Amino acid sequence: MSGPFGFTVEAGDGRARAGRLTTPHGEVLTPCFMPVGTKATVKAVLPPALEALGAQVVLANTYHLYFRPGAEVVRAHGGLHRFMDWPRPILTDSGGFQVFSLSDTRVVGDDGVEFSSVYDGSRHLFTPRLAIEVQEALGADIVMCFDQCAPGTLDRGEIARAVERTTRWAAECRAAQTRGDQLLVGIVQGGVDEELRRRSAAQLLALDFDAYAIGGLSVGERDEEMLATVELLDGILPADRFRYFMGIGDPVGVVEVVARGVDLFDCVLPTRLARTGSAFTSEGRLNLRNARYADDLRPLDRDCDCPCCRRYTRAYLRHLVNQREIAGMQLLSEHNLRVLVRLCERAREAIVAGGFARFADEIRATLSAAHD
Amino acid sequence: MSGPFGFTVEAGDGRARAGRLTTPHGEVLTPCFMPVGTKATVKAVLPPALEALGAQVVLANTYHLYFRPGAEVVRAHGGLHRFMDWPRPILTDSGGFQVFSLSDTRVVGDDGVEFSSVYDGSRHLFTPRLAIEVQEALGADIVMCFDQCAPGTLDRGEIARAVERTTRWAAECRAAQTRGDQLLVGIVQGGVDEELRRRSAAQLLALDFDAYAIGGLSVGERDEEMLATVELLDGILPADRFRYFMGIGDPVGVVEVVARGVDLFDCVLPTRLARTGSAFTSEGRLNLRNARYADDLRPLDRDCDCPCCRRYTRAYLRHLVNQREIAGMQLLSEHNLRVLVRLCERAREAIVAGGFARFADEIRATLSAAHD
Repeated sequence: MSGPFGFTVEAGDGRARAGRLTTPHGEVLTPCFMPVGTKATVKAVLPPALEALGAQVVLANTYHLYFRPGAEVVRAHGGLHRFMDWPRPILTDSGGFQVFSLSDTRVVGDDGVEFSSVYDGSRHLFTPRLAIEVQEALGADIVMCFDQCAPGTLDRGEIARAVERTTRWAAECRAAQTRGDQLLVGIVQGGVDEELRRRSAAQLLALDFDAYAIGGLSVGERDEEMLATVELLDGILPADRFRYFMGIGDPVGVVEVVARGVDLFDCVLPTRLARTGSAFTSEGRLNLRNARYADDLRPLDRDCDCPCCRRYTRAYLRHLVNQREIAGMQLLSEHNLRVLVRLCERAREAIVAGGFARFADEIRATLSAAHD
Repeated sequence: MSGPFGFTVEAGDGRARAGRLTTPHGEVLTPCFMPVGTKATVKAVLPPALEALGAQVVLANTYHLYFRPGAEVVRAHGGLHRFMDWPRPILTDSGGFQVFSLSDTRVVGDDGVEFSSVYDGSRHLFTPRLAIEVQEALGADIVMCFDQCAPGTLDRGEIARAVERTTRWAAECRAAQTRGDQLLVGIVQGGVDEELRRRSAAQLLALDFDAYAIGGLSVGERDEEMLATVELLDGILPADRFRYFMGIGDPVGVVEVVARGVDLFDCVLPTRLARTGSAFTSEGRLNLRNARYADDLRPLDRDCDCPCCRRYTRAYLRHLVNQREIAGMQLLSEHNLRVLVRLCERAREAIVAGGFARFADEIRATLSAAHD
């Protein structure tokens, strides 16, 4: 791995890995869940609270920051770390996912994608070169290739074309890079088709990226197909590079991909659920809008060490959620993130101790409990 | 002053006073601005942040908590301190202000007020006895008499009737009290009519309350009338009891009432302004939605010691406000509250040092600068 970066697998248990990633803004212990700070802020959780709950890396979105406030404003601050006051590692996506998911009038060409901005409807062209230029202005530690996200639910020809474009664009991203302090991650596409996944991985491996992401999953395919694809790639991707699964944030899903060799992952789910009053707990998912919690004096989760669970009752949290108080969003967002972070801490300990299989079974048995 | 309470004026400068209030949940140095936590949460600011910015007392609203979550839920927690995890002093109002301001179908009788709940339209009767019962369940350190708020803009006969009712109700509140650990404050009404204010104060003084509030101001009257009324009461209210001005939170207004002998005050203004992107600064009030701040790399206020001003630029804050990010509300709420708290800290120092008049002039010259 080049420059200021390093990645070492320190322990393995089955396919699960305990790793250590070095970046210009510090080390990251894996498995690692990365909270999403779409617009350079993790919704309702300020950086001191993020640090306190053990978050190691924050993700930000190139698409949104390109439009608001604009990459040059962030560059003038010296990059995202200072703009958003987050001193630890940051990862930016390439904008590819939003370009495909947020516009129904996009035109995909071999050079890039023309689309309408969700902010004002104006037409824009995103290319691999632009995605890198913007990410260099934003200044994250880890940056992503501009890819074409092709869900497994598309027809095979379309997915195959997305694989070809993703490879071409990955090479163009590599060529566009001018900064030596950003780790560029290649993204494997191919839906849930084994041959297309093998083809995409082989083409990207030929470009020899420092790390690989698994894209195009968690976008409508069946769980078994998703997990089979991750398992397939575990056998193909080089063991000494980290693997980043894009977009998974439910506790059981996280354990399943960690069990199949994934090191990093992100998702808006924990914070989005929190803002609607839902919480991950060791009894399953709780919806605090439910009247049954109106006079429930118990903590949200007896087994959790977050401020929300140490200081408040379910009755108070329900009151905040019902009254749409910002404090409810703050406390539940911190809690849900802490659940994911702690799950990763415990997964790592289990891997190091050689007890990951039992740990994973325990999580499957408790955290997938019926929702209410 | 009875039981676990005490109030001492430690220094005076002109009419301004530096006091020390003792309560079952700790001491309060005055002058003191109290942040408003209407529904048992100061909007967008959790208790650790409130403590960090130097807040000493938090106010909560009996009307809202009576309906949601209900006084019995709070009582079951052992009171508001544990319900909302605020270990320092709490003051609850009586619900009187909301009963009069939130319902246009109220029926005022000598026994109390019948009105429609803003939550579901159901009809309710609030009496002095009920206001005390609810406040005893909520368990604040300082509780308020149930009064009839009569703005100076009403006709004189109506204000006179409100004064009579307020006195009768104050006696009923006193008689209804069963707890010995709550300081009950009498509220002077009388609009901006000198004779009615004198009458109201004399009637309440005859009941010998431990502290007095000035109600019925900041509700539409002219500034000169408001200040003349405060000045009048400074000459009437006993010097050894604290005086609480209900509902003032702009920095210059705060200095003007402190200059006229007021010790405690509260207002939703700092947090409400923050949620719409407005900030108090030493250059006057700034509205961060203004495009001029889009690439402004300066802190919000160079003279402020709050986390928002130490860590962020106006450009970042404008971005958060424009994108309606919760972080913007968090940071600006903390900032605006810190401005008020620090203003009180500085006012106290000036009073102790005998330099309050110069301090007040400085605040009038800077903080009343043109808004933008």
